[in-house]
Amino acid sequence: MKHFLNTQDWIRADLDALLADAARFKRDRIGDALKGRAIALVFFNPSMRTRTSFELGAFQLGGHAVVLQPGKDAWPIEFDLGAVMDGDTEEHIAEVARVLSRYVDLIGVRAFPKFVDWSADREDRVLKGFAKYSTVPVINMETITHPCQELAHALALQEHFGTPDLRGRKYVLTWTYHPKALNTAVANSALTIATRLGMDVTLLCPTPEYVLDERYMGWARQNVAESGGSFAVSHDIDAAYAGADVVYAKSWGALPYFGDWEKEKPVRDRYRHFIVDEAKMARTNDAVFSHCLPLRRNVKATDAVMDSPACIAIEEAENRLHVQKAVMAALVAQPSGMGSRE
Amino acid sequence: MKHFLNTQDWIRADLDALLADAARFKRDRIGDALKGRAIALVFFNPSMRTRTSFELGAFQLGGHAVVLQPGKDAWPIEFDLGAVMDGDTEEHIAEVARVLSRYVDLIGVRAFPKFVDWSADREDRVLKGFAKYSTVPVINMETITHPCQELAHALALQEHFGTPDLRGRKYVLTWTYHPKALNTAVANSALTIATRLGMDVTLLCPTPEYVLDERYMGWARQNVAESGGSFAVSHDIDAAYAGADVVYAKSWGALPYFGDWEKEKPVRDRYRHFIVDEAKMARTNDAVFSHCLPLRRNVKATDAVMDSPACIAIEEAENRLHVQKAVMAALVAQPSGMGSRE
Amino acid sequence: MKHFLNTQDWIRADLDALLADAARFKRDRIGDALKGRAIALVFFNPSMRTRTSFELGAFQLGGHAVVLQPGKDAWPIEFDLGAVMDGDTEEHIAEVARVLSRYVDLIGVRAFPKFVDWSADREDRVLKGFAKYSTVPVINMETITHPCQELAHALALQEHFGTPDLRGRKYVLTWTYHPKALNTAVANSALTIATRLGMDVTLLCPTPEYVLDERYMGWARQNVAESGGSFAVSHDIDAAYAGADVVYAKSWGALPYFGDWEKEKPVRDRYRHFIVDEAKMARTNDAVFSHCLPLRRNVKATDAVMDSPACIAIEEAENRLHVQKAVMAALVAQPSGMGSRE
Repeated sequence: MKHFLNTQDWIRADLDALLADAARFKRDRIGDALKGRAIALVFFNPSMRTRTSFELGAFQLGGHAVVLQPGKDAWPIEFDLGAVMDGDTEEHIAEVARVLSRYVDLIGVRAFPKFVDWSADREDRVLKGFAKYSTVPVINMETITHPCQELAHALALQEHFGTPDLRGRKYVLTWTYHPKALNTAVANSALTIATRLGMDVTLLCPTPEYVLDERYMGWARQNVAESGGSFAVSHDIDAAYAGADVVYAKSWGALPYFGDWEKEKPVRDRYRHFIVDEAKMARTNDAVFSHCLPLRRNVKATDAVMDSPACIAIEEAENRLHVQKAVMAALVAQPSGMGSRE
Repeated sequence: MKHFLNTQDWIRADLDALLADAARFKRDRIGDALKGRAIALVFFNPSMRTRTSFELGAFQLGGHAVVLQPGKDAWPIEFDLGAVMDGDTEEHIAEVARVLSRYVDLIGVRAFPKFVDWSADREDRVLKGFAKYSTVPVINMETITHPCQELAHALALQEHFGTPDLRGRKYVLTWTYHPKALNTAVANSALTIATRLGMDVTLLCPTPEYVLDERYMGWARQNVAESGGSFAVSHDIDAAYAGADVVYAKSWGALPYFGDWEKEKPVRDRYRHFIVDEAKMARTNDAVFSHCLPLRRNVKATDAVMDSPACIAIEEAENRLHVQKAVMAALVAQPSGMGSRE
Repeated sequence: MKHFLNTQDWIRADLDALLADAARFKRDRIGDALKGRAIALVFFNPSMRTRTSFELGAFQLGGHAVVLQPGKDAWPIEFDLGAVMDGDTEEHIAEVARVLSRYVDLIGVRAFPKFVDWSADREDRVLKGFAKYSTVPVINMETITHPCQELAHALALQEHFGTPDLRGRKYVLTWTYHPKALNTAVANSALTIATRLGMDVTLLCPTPEYVLDERYMGWARQNVAESGGSFAVSHDIDAAYAGADVVYAKSWGALPYFGDWEKEKPVRDRYRHFIVDEAKMARTNDAVFSHCLPLRRNVKATDAVMDSPACIAIEEAENRLHVQKAVMAALVAQPSGMGSRE
């Protein structure tokens, strides 16, 4: 059985099929691919877009989404195998996943890092716990990666450029300032999908400390080797923006300071000028701009950029609805010909 | 595109059509006017009746409601244009409204005043922010007015009197005691719809300090001029109840004390006797009694009044379901012949 | 009009019919018995399984569930008749139940004890308040009993033994340790349904202080008299497990310490060895094991027991979905031939 935990687990043909399905679901919103089916949306962290788009996606295809928030309006869950559960946790993931699997056809999981110890967070054990014990397909609704956002982003770029083939486009993933140290998930994901689709990718960030985890840097290099694009790291704003076709912005916390964010603060505060503004965009090849949202205006990008025709963040957000319908429909159908890279 | 922000924005013929539609939706509960459609219910404040009635109204017409609670299980939202968002807010209303507009066909908004500064609260900027940026119709689910309650109230009165024509009825909107200073929204709305429908309206309140904001007093006078009823303020309980056909109760905070509620407390505490009781009801012309709910029994109205046949508060609450179906269906259909007063 | 407050209120033939309907609903998941119908799920306490199973049950039969959490995202409710409501409560159950009855076809209520005063909690007044004022059927979603769990448990046993006739089976309800004093609801319910179905029931608990409330002990004796089984209390682990066909585990707080839980703690701490483990299970007649979930692994039962083929807790949890569909469908249909014992 196939889950949707990371695009990197999927073969390229199946990813392309998801994107093509999503484009069809966008044209023809209502269908019956999930008729009588249900998905549990398990949120360990808050959400607006993800919850709305999954809930409506299920509805538009005849299904139903149940929203669960463990530790908020449901029980706190244990993830350690063999634990003597005499502390705070009330129920083991083994039971949670098995019972949910009896009720629903799909399980979506959002579980952000705890932001204390990256070596623990990078194990992604909440998502993996669900995948291990669930007997139905599991969908990553953002943990340490965000593959649904990847597909929405990719579809928005395909729409913008009028072709599914994005090879040769100059793609800049730029770090931006944000008052808090954020999750690297969308940055990891942007790197993953941009290299997968064969673009010429630059990771622009203030210093080597802001480079992403080696797992995702490795995926990027592997993807470049397979898809024929390129991948480089830059700390030079002018050089990175020059001639860019795509500017994708995201803020994240520097991994060497993980869990020690007060120490990162003075470092981070020096790089407020990474904001995406008109002057930087003027250096590009009339680049398209996007962001996964939510976005702090005039901190990550200026009002002028956000309200310009170059901004496709709203399109990308809308695409979440349609790519997730494609993912849910594909996982429920599970054609025998669908292969996994694992 | 037409929103449903206030009844005062709508021409009388369209309000009458909504009420007639609502009566039909009450007889024939199930339909397909919202088949495959969705509404986002954005609650900045808690709700039971509003949420249940909108959620079920959407369901009964084949649609789906998504419930969002910004700052609770979604992101805190910025409403100021041009703000440098380096504080608590995570996302600007421009993005929230535009993205929601891609997901849903309608947006309902509940945003009570903050109860600190009436000159700020009276701008209704959350509702107006959604209306400004949304590309789909927006419905007021109670902000500083409560137009859905107005329609439910009007329908309940039409049912009680057996006719849509309420002209000439003596209508008393009475302030009542409540331990806390409450929103003026329903009082503003009762005044608005009662005068709009041509009734002879008395606003009964303890002192001139409890008179409503001049905007709504002005709407009442304007409505009287157009619909041929009358409007007066009274501080005399006996005179106001004498011969009344309708008694509508509501508590609210006095605007001169807005944000300074500790100072209002001793004033308010002197008027506990404004409670609606059998003695007062006996002075009326066998009046019908109602309230928007929730109602504190034996504080705003006695058990005897609440449990009497004169009380139509339950009918009014039920009507919320049906008038909201009428509003949603009308906004989604948006017939070209539908005119706005603005 | 018939509610589903306790199985003990229902005649045996109707309970058997519910179980048979549930088995059919399990085979044929999708239907239209609730087409266009709605249920309000009123949760005064958190829930995962109950909420998910009711919500999906309604969906699978064409209906819709509205989830309400009074005091959390809805108003705090008053249950005392005649109260002068100038304290914390905003609305009386009379209005809540009557208004909900206009919106929905069924009302489910979860209201755990407050754990301060058992003589108050045992009155079950939240559930009874809804049943009193509602004009639609009310379903107990766990208060001081848990009748939906009873049906799910009974169905799982019928499936395991391959027959609806459970008479003559040796059934052990064993108390287990848990760091907190828990509700007696599921224990009361297990005792009720096991004796009702004619099994030979042993209530195994550490001391006479852990015996259940006399109301439920009385129901057990009454059921035995009518159904021909037996009922005994034991404090001897070895004797109780010997030859058992069914082991059902649950932890609960000792009633003599109710509200004074710090005093119970040293007592409770002496009985950690009541955990269900392989050694105890080896003494049984190859017994089936179950629990209502959530379960703390290695505290109430060991990993080895939970992961053994003897454990049918997941089946029992799944059955919640199907028995609740049966209950909802039966209550909405309310055939005139359906009798109540009251």
